[in-house]
Amino acid sequence: MNVEFINPFLSSLMNVLSTMAQTQLKPSKPMMKKSEVAKGDVSGLIGMVGPQTKGSLSISFDEELALTIMERMLGERPDSINEEVTDMVGEITNMVAGGAKNLLGEKGYEFDMATPIVVSGNNHTITHKCDGPKVLMPFNSDAGLAHIEVCFDKL
Amino acid sequence: MNVEFINPFLSSLMNVLSTMAQTQLKPSKPMMKKSEVAKGDVSGLIGMVGPQTKGSLSISFDEELALTIMERMLGERPDSINEEVTDMVGEITNMVAGGAKNLLGEKGYEFDMATPIVVSGNNHTITHKCDGPKVLMPFNSDAGLAHIEVCFDKL
Repeated sequence: MNVEFINPFLSSLMNVLSTMAQTQLKPSKPMMKKSEVAKGDVSGLIGMVGPQTKGSLSISFDEELALTIMERMLGERPDSINEEVTDMVGEITNMVAGGAKNLLGEKGYEFDMATPIVVSGNNHTITHKCDGPKVLMPFNSDAGLAHIEVCFDKL
Repeated sequence: MNVEFINPFLSSLMNVLSTMAQTQLKPSKPMMKKSEVAKGDVSGLIGMVGPQTKGSLSISFDEELALTIMERMLGERPDSINEEVTDMVGEITNMVAGGAKNLLGEKGYEFDMATPIVVSGNNHTITHKCDGPKVLMPFNSDAGLAHIEVCFDKL
């Protein structure tokens, strides 16, 4: 899996949060070790299937960041991770995968997206089970951490 | 979404656990209320994409049941949910979706599967974000609870 395949997901996430929630994410160092895991309090997950490959995407947020994004989008801050927050995380996951799908389609990589799933629970961990290398990228922001992880079966 | 579309997932899960781990799951009453959520300590999730529809599947296990399945499959019981356990949960998720795919293919419903994702974390909850009705089915066993949830966009 090369950078050409991963960068569209990272730029799509930064673009979605900047546009929708005026939140700037700063990429940290990508982690490619097998032992590293994506952690968060609320995560959006989506499967992707194409003729050349298949894979999965997850975007995990600290609770503080998820609530701040809600506040910036809707003007009101929920007390905790409720159904509105999980709806928002599912929608962001859809938009990030959709944005990456468009960018990759221009390069000749096609895939279709499944429907998103949202997981909530303090400090859960996520493991993508696919054959190819995984890229796990942590992001900093003024309101907390986000992690994105992308994995595709070997091309 | 009709029973014809859901039953293959339930029978596939019961079949996989009975064959691989000599564990009999007893279905409880299905829950279709929007407020019910799938809970567990370790869950396997997979996206599905077909020409007619797309959707997602999750299978959640209590820790006690996941560890017992490992013991029955491999003869040794891990102390906690480690990478071997998440590998096993990912594999079971793949097999259950694959079994349902075969059964549904015979009826003319085709879909492809993405790669599985495994979530671990005490008592996490899972919400499938799709347009169609969801079916959440709890199972009892001699070693603890499992929940399966299936959701497809409106056919």
